[in-house]
Amino acid sequence: MITSRENRWLKRFRAALSGERGGDEIVGVEGVRLVEAALGSGLPIEALLVSESGTRHLPRIAHVLASRVTVLRTSDKLFASVADTQTPQGIAALVRPRQATIESLLTGTPLLIVMAGVQDPGNVGTIVRAAEAFGATGALTCLADGIGTADPFAPKALRSSAGSALRLPIVHGASATILFGQLKMFGVKTLAAVAARFAEKNRKDNGPDDPSPLLRPWDFDWKVSTAILIGNEGSGLPANLVRSADARVYIPQAAAAAPVGIESLNAAMAASVLLYEAMRQRNTPGQPRS
Amino acid sequence: MITSRENRWLKRFRAALSGERGGDEIVGVEGVRLVEAALGSGLPIEALLVSESGTRHLPRIAHVLASRVTVLRTSDKLFASVADTQTPQGIAALVRPRQATIESLLTGTPLLIVMAGVQDPGNVGTIVRAAEAFGATGALTCLADGIGTADPFAPKALRSSAGSALRLPIVHGASATILFGQLKMFGVKTLAAVAARFAEKNRKDNGPDDPSPLLRPWDFDWKVSTAILIGNEGSGLPANLVRSADARVYIPQAAAAAPVGIESLNAAMAASVLLYEAMRQRNTPGQPRS
Repeated sequence: MITSRENRWLKRFRAALSGERGGDEIVGVEGVRLVEAALGSGLPIEALLVSESGTRHLPRIAHVLASRVTVLRTSDKLFASVADTQTPQGIAALVRPRQATIESLLTGTPLLIVMAGVQDPGNVGTIVRAAEAFGATGALTCLADGIGTADPFAPKALRSSAGSALRLPIVHGASATILFGQLKMFGVKTLAAVAARFAEKNRKDNGPDDPSPLLRPWDFDWKVSTAILIGNEGSGLPANLVRSADARVYIPQAAAAAPVGIESLNAAMAASVLLYEAMRQRNTPGQPRS
Repeated sequence: MITSRENRWLKRFRAALSGERGGDEIVGVEGVRLVEAALGSGLPIEALLVSESGTRHLPRIAHVLASRVTVLRTSDKLFASVADTQTPQGIAALVRPRQATIESLLTGTPLLIVMAGVQDPGNVGTIVRAAEAFGATGALTCLADGIGTADPFAPKALRSSAGSALRLPIVHGASATILFGQLKMFGVKTLAAVAARFAEKNRKDNGPDDPSPLLRPWDFDWKVSTAILIGNEGSGLPANLVRSADARVYIPQAAAAAPVGIESLNAAMAASVLLYEAMRQRNTPGQPRS
């Protein structure tokens, strides 16, 4: 027998776990790792839902489970009916993610990743995860040529981020124009990530008259305030964003791969490599850059 | 009306495209990019299957379509019935991949990636793609603690590799013991990739008595002959393989990410970052390392 209160909660979990975000911006997270990340993030938790078999995970999250969190119990069957995963672990939470402001991301020596038109939630999540791992100070998403970026707080992106989206400061849905203005004002260098194939071709076509510097990752001094722009999986960054950037950066491809027209690295891999290079340089103090 | 010859071919394509490999080791590739990669690879092509609507792709592959390739025509409906993809492009090929030998990978100054227990075909494909892009000279797979590595030539891995598996020299299913013996004999340094969390813990536990050096990617001189060992997505490399390696390498994680127990980078991302570091060092001649 389900009470109407229980029913209301189950409905709420079903909607949130399937990616629906109501006006209150609450998101659902599922599985012990993400629930642990959510509870440990210090973000407001609306409720925790635990099924009979999910009870076994409670010891693991005990250290982060504040007494004021509403814990709801349900059956495995009902849990499965609200879960978004194939083999649910029986534990889920409703959490209100933090939206950072652009200004808050511009203090210190920021290392930012700006996703402009990255459509795949898995790629967005992977990029956010890499950003946190490599010590980026924030991530932003914006519209590019009418192509939006997937919501970093949507279930699939959250899963791919392994919870990083709950910890890393994120601005979702910035205006590219406003963002560029602020980055410039705060002296943050903007680097447009471009595909190797495009870059090499461009270098040949334009010769020394290239409109903006075309750099390999190790040509750039990452110890300054930097924002990396990553574009759409298929079409890359829009031309106007590339033109607005201080420099273009590309990851060279081996000669063997180039002539056969191999696809450039995917958006998430390119972002990871650039973030790694930033971390490497920032981790080797006094090292002459090369 | 389908002839029995047509029927035999359709059956053959259906089996190959779904990942079945008969005794003849033929694999199926689907979609214009992979077919183009297959035809351009110089590998033996058993047949090309083109549906009515797939005909539009023929101009794109004309430059690699040798006259001796058997071209079979079929209807869109029959093509869809043999295809492994949701929205087939109407073009597929049967190709016989090349199996390299371990010895053939040990000439020059090799940069090898050894996958030991990488189970996900998507990860295997992504690693092979990154290996080619960053100039690795070959890839090998082996069994680790009874866990096999996904076949780099299976449809899903081939797709994730964007065709790189058809070009990069690959040894699938090497014996770890024989492989280590040969790498040692040829003076190839072996680097075991370990998770950052594990590495930091280990460093603390063992202090200066660490059994083998524990390096960050930029601590190692990648200009020497090198083999990178990448382990299982969940459990990493088996202890005996880590012990046999000349050094352990880990990708440091930002302090913010470490205490909350963030998962280490996934196998494909870790491999990409290590391969990038090797490329970076090999691309900057005379540069003092680090």
